[in-house]
Amino acid sequence: MSNSGGQMWRATFAWRGTQYAGWQLQSNAETIQARIESALSAICGVEGRIPAQASGRTDAGVHAEMQIVSFRLPVDRLPRQVVAGLNYHLPDDIVCLGVEKTVENFSPRQWTKEKLYRYRILNRGPICPFRSDYVWHVHQPLDVASMHQAAAHLIGQHDYSSFRAAGCSASTPVRRILDARVYSREDDELAVDFVGHGFLRHQIRIMVGTLVDVGAGKLSADRVLEIREARDRRSAGSTAPAKGLVLVRVDLLTGPRQYDED
Amino acid sequence: MSNSGGQMWRATFAWRGTQYAGWQLQSNAETIQARIESALSAICGVEGRIPAQASGRTDAGVHAEMQIVSFRLPVDRLPRQVVAGLNYHLPDDIVCLGVEKTVENFSPRQWTKEKLYRYRILNRGPICPFRSDYVWHVHQPLDVASMHQAAAHLIGQHDYSSFRAAGCSASTPVRRILDARVYSREDDELAVDFVGHGFLRHQIRIMVGTLVDVGAGKLSADRVLEIREARDRRSAGSTAPAKGLVLVRVDLLTGPRQYDED
Repeated sequence: MSNSGGQMWRATFAWRGTQYAGWQLQSNAETIQARIESALSAICGVEGRIPAQASGRTDAGVHAEMQIVSFRLPVDRLPRQVVAGLNYHLPDDIVCLGVEKTVENFSPRQWTKEKLYRYRILNRGPICPFRSDYVWHVHQPLDVASMHQAAAHLIGQHDYSSFRAAGCSASTPVRRILDARVYSREDDELAVDFVGHGFLRHQIRIMVGTLVDVGAGKLSADRVLEIREARDRRSAGSTAPAKGLVLVRVDLLTGPRQYDED
Repeated sequence: MSNSGGQMWRATFAWRGTQYAGWQLQSNAETIQARIESALSAICGVEGRIPAQASGRTDAGVHAEMQIVSFRLPVDRLPRQVVAGLNYHLPDDIVCLGVEKTVENFSPRQWTKEKLYRYRILNRGPICPFRSDYVWHVHQPLDVASMHQAAAHLIGQHDYSSFRAAGCSASTPVRRILDARVYSREDDELAVDFVGHGFLRHQIRIMVGTLVDVGAGKLSADRVLEIREARDRRSAGSTAPAKGLVLVRVDLLTGPRQYDED
């Protein structure tokens, strides 16, 4: 990784994903990465693109309470200048929470120790118009205990092909999930938390869709083990809507990981 | 008020105002009233407009946690059918919370006893992307105590011309405000609550803009009394953004009021 001049920075961002086609740059759609890179160019007064890297991609409509991003700035700035400048140039639904100068070989993807993703389900009463971009509204009453029991089958290092979207570009369907739990949250919400190094395309949303089938009584909790072992996307439930998903936290290692995982 | 056939209903609705040009029907803009009236026609299977009346208008971008609405349905329905049918036909950012059959002469506007409006201000740290449609982000630190002291001058029956937008169609600038208070809410928010029978156009937002000038040290608390007494819009502060305002609650009388007030 050559130093092409300038200082490497580590930053944390939060965003509301509703209006964006996900993290990654696209030619015909508004993305988080494009907005952040434009703001970086603006604060440095340069014309060209200043590349920003995140700890992973997020889908269209998925939110982040804290994502780790790296970039190299060609000009010298104080941390508070970078934060204030980014927030001045960013729209209100993307915010820089903090920045610090970091080592030359820093890579959010390679240094990620684990990520916590949360999926929120509104499961009582009518849709709440103030949360409709952040929750999946499920009408039928869900049994939290059986969902939590089923989630135990989604912990550990396994081949997760059953929960992998068509078009997933990962080299292997094996992932290690460190924790999965389902719990009641506020009066009318359930949440499903997953902790892992990384996940396959739509993996969390397909796992949540399957757990909701368990909660609604369409599947037994132990059926989820059979689904996982089938290694076949057709055996699992439907993909839960993106809007219920939020990246809550990314924990970093003190250096790059020695194995490759998305 | 003639019974043109059908049953009068009283309903409560909540909405996120971000995407709408306010409550009232407009020819070229999407409004809450238009959406609700369309849903009413749909559940009754009629072509024509089924008029809906609210306890008052709300501006573009203003939210409601509970607004009272009346309508007359030409066909017989059970309450749970009306609620389920409306929520089926309404978008996710407008929700019917409940309905009941009511008396023929019911009028939300005439029967309103008092309304609670809340204005939310984010006053610490950067903008929160999950609240950016619901709060006004004010950078300079605000002094809650002096704002609350100033708000005392905005209680009582007075001529509120200083806090009345150009184009306000009310027949009199006199309003009776029953309560006004400023307080800290959550870690990083202030809220300003106003209780009254009704308010002039933009009145709450102009009062909030003026109170923020007090909180920022630009005006003394007692200056707000002088501003009120000036009866001149130019003496007050700027109009706070609509997005921070929410109609929290409408309390009803047991019959129509005997005096006219918007």
